[in-house]
Amino acid sequence: MSTSGLPSPDDDFPAWYVEVVRRAELAEHGPSRGSMIIRPHGYAIWELTQRALDDRFKATGHENLYFPLLIPMGLLSKEADHVEGFEPQVAVVTRGGGEELEEPLAIRPSSESIIWNTYRRWVQSYRDLPLLYNQWANVMRWELRPRLFLRTTEFLWQEGHTAHATSDEAMAEALRMLDVYRQVAEDVLAIPVFPGRKSPGERFPGAVETFTIEGLMRDAKALQCGTSHFLGQNFGRAYDVTFLDADGHQEHAWGTSWGFSTRMVGATIMAHGDAAGLRLPPAVAPIQVVIVPIYRSDDERASVLATADGLRADLATAGIRVRLDDRDQHRPGYKFAEWELKGVPVRVELGPRDVAAGRAVLVSRLGGDREEVALADVATGMVGRLADIQAALFADAIAFRNANSHQITSFDAFATGLDEGGGFWTGAWCGNEECEAEISARTKATIRFLPIEPREPGSACMHCGRPGVDTATWARAY
Amino acid sequence: MSTSGLPSPDDDFPAWYVEVVRRAELAEHGPSRGSMIIRPHGYAIWELTQRALDDRFKATGHENLYFPLLIPMGLLSKEADHVEGFEPQVAVVTRGGGEELEEPLAIRPSSESIIWNTYRRWVQSYRDLPLLYNQWANVMRWELRPRLFLRTTEFLWQEGHTAHATSDEAMAEALRMLDVYRQVAEDVLAIPVFPGRKSPGERFPGAVETFTIEGLMRDAKALQCGTSHFLGQNFGRAYDVTFLDADGHQEHAWGTSWGFSTRMVGATIMAHGDAAGLRLPPAVAPIQVVIVPIYRSDDERASVLATADGLRADLATAGIRVRLDDRDQHRPGYKFAEWELKGVPVRVELGPRDVAAGRAVLVSRLGGDREEVALADVATGMVGRLADIQAALFADAIAFRNANSHQITSFDAFATGLDEGGGFWTGAWCGNEECEAEISARTKATIRFLPIEPREPGSACMHCGRPGVDTATWARAY
Repeated sequence: MSTSGLPSPDDDFPAWYVEVVRRAELAEHGPSRGSMIIRPHGYAIWELTQRALDDRFKATGHENLYFPLLIPMGLLSKEADHVEGFEPQVAVVTRGGGEELEEPLAIRPSSESIIWNTYRRWVQSYRDLPLLYNQWANVMRWELRPRLFLRTTEFLWQEGHTAHATSDEAMAEALRMLDVYRQVAEDVLAIPVFPGRKSPGERFPGAVETFTIEGLMRDAKALQCGTSHFLGQNFGRAYDVTFLDADGHQEHAWGTSWGFSTRMVGATIMAHGDAAGLRLPPAVAPIQVVIVPIYRSDDERASVLATADGLRADLATAGIRVRLDDRDQHRPGYKFAEWELKGVPVRVELGPRDVAAGRAVLVSRLGGDREEVALADVATGMVGRLADIQAALFADAIAFRNANSHQITSFDAFATGLDEGGGFWTGAWCGNEECEAEISARTKATIRFLPIEPREPGSACMHCGRPGVDTATWARAY
Repeated sequence: MSTSGLPSPDDDFPAWYVEVVRRAELAEHGPSRGSMIIRPHGYAIWELTQRALDDRFKATGHENLYFPLLIPMGLLSKEADHVEGFEPQVAVVTRGGGEELEEPLAIRPSSESIIWNTYRRWVQSYRDLPLLYNQWANVMRWELRPRLFLRTTEFLWQEGHTAHATSDEAMAEALRMLDVYRQVAEDVLAIPVFPGRKSPGERFPGAVETFTIEGLMRDAKALQCGTSHFLGQNFGRAYDVTFLDADGHQEHAWGTSWGFSTRMVGATIMAHGDAAGLRLPPAVAPIQVVIVPIYRSDDERASVLATADGLRADLATAGIRVRLDDRDQHRPGYKFAEWELKGVPVRVELGPRDVAAGRAVLVSRLGGDREEVALADVATGMVGRLADIQAALFADAIAFRNANSHQITSFDAFATGLDEGGGFWTGAWCGNEECEAEISARTKATIRFLPIEPREPGSACMHCGRPGVDTATWARAY
């Protein structure tokens, strides 16, 4: 136990995670299996992430729409790999309006089936393409070992679904959206990620290629942060979405889909947190600055609170998300610990002597360094100060990730290194799925990604010794 | 049929509505019963409405959170009136993860039950109150006679759920949020509404009072546009949400809930549309200004498109949602009709002679008046022009609503007037539920609202002749 009352993240990271989520009031378990109640502090992080994504979707020409929650089972089943991948996880509605339904309805585990079934009506000519659509939605995949934010039966996400006239255009779209995800992970959530391609065994059900961004959490385990799929013509064929091209030929449409979910709130906790709790990137911190007034007498209280409220107004005017913590029932030390736990990037302490001297004390959640700043300069300097903290969190995460990214020199070095310190391990792979499965069985690691373009390593597979055909990066992962 | 190809709204309003929704690409039916696919043009109206609501919720101190979609049936049943009201409409999940569930799960028809069951853990002391929370969510109420936007099995909405230490505070909250709804209906959607109180028979299941805002559609039928409920201690008792007040007494918490849904997209269509299609209030028009270039030769095309694109950039910089319709495959006349159908408030026509003269022709969707404006002035004047259109639409709707609001002089005049022209009818009511039911059976009208504070009419009930105890406003309604 540290002074925060949290389990130590170094000693027991899973216990630390559970306690941070609970005590920082981010989320809790709901009454039905695997469900999650997202509390306001957790939901606000998601809202800010949503806004960052949505702005970028619109800037790249996408529009939002909304498809129904319930998908007739017969419709879900048309793409064989897709249904095989999802059927075991599906929740099924069998009664509605007091009657047994003739056809059971699946709660969407993902919406390719219902969307492509509709695209058939929306697409006739190449002039109708591309369709560049996204929806914000809840989805459900039955989960036996739930973990808040990371693995829950219901989760919130966006799912993009696009249709194109050519393979090249669809592939460019899948990679464009992967890069949008990389931008949001890195520039907004301050989580450095490796973009890459999944091995065939890790592909989305029904996809020709699955692209991923992979981050590293503070326990040196990897987390898949977002995926973008090149669907080829698989859904175009399964749902008979055809169009007349400019030459008058009938073709099946090419597709992509891509998703980013509330799991990323969990990633933000696990990529930045420390012994005192959350460290939130200012870009998604629901409260960026908290002002904690310090006083003893009623006279002091009046004077300090008046100055604090002026400061709050200045910061709000500067576009900062600021909270003045004027609760009387708690001591300043209690408040310091609470806002550290909740990850607020900057704390402003203001006592009677500060007011008299026309200054405040600013404390960064990173490192905890204290700085006296003239009251008049607090608001004007805050945007830059928050940008510095955002950059410092990202630099810190990059340094950690780089220190935990290794080249594989031998299978034994890889297996031992994984046991000792986790991290990413990159080396030559033969491309054989059985070899991949054997390595996973022996190490509990999986291929997190291959390079976007296959890269011949020029050396033998680190496990089976056959010629290497691609360069795989492995890790133990969530 | 008018030139728009739409059924006449005067002759067959329901057919006009169906065709406008379809041809303006707002929504369509989904594959499962009563479900709806909200297309981009319809969804964008909802997104703009959401933003207007959400900004006001936050400005009044509310935070967003998210509760699970699925509610164990046993939990839903704890408040007797609540479950009685909703059980017949509930969709039930009985299988998950390939197995029959031990306890069936309801898809939320509304979230009071799961939320108050959780508030029990969040509330101990009066210091924990009020809880001022809202969620954006999909809900499901089985629907046998679906109508796009107005009545669908699944719909999108927000549901606010607040808990308070006193009855007065909860009542003030319910009325405050009713006024937020009034503001959004009137100032954003340009739909004038009457705020009022529902008669006991029309209350939300489990509420002590239900407040409503009621609008009038162009066929002179009323539409309930949003409701806010004072729950008293009903849910506090049913879910055992208690707190210690400042004097150390254990009390049950007082509650409110309030909801505003995608039904309001339907209201916006029906309150403003005309024979040519939609007329969208600029505040929620996904495209506020469309530029239609006019040209014959390639030379003309190059010059007109260059000027049009400059104008588009100027308008975008001024914060206007603008589209340049540069599709080559359609003639200008086709485009004019399409954007009128889709309700774009201002059309800018630009031909070679306009370019030469340094001007454009602006056509308002209201009235269709044409005005020549110097190119340099188009963007600078557009914000004011859109505000004028917003105000004119609202004034037009108020005039229509007022012309169709009547005082009841006798039951016969009321019944005849309803048959001849619909509208709102206000008169003395005895307060008796049987009398209310008899009037409804005879007229197909319902009490849309009573005054927020009961108002003794000083005259006899217009139907039964007993003493009037309140003043009821009746209408045929959606």
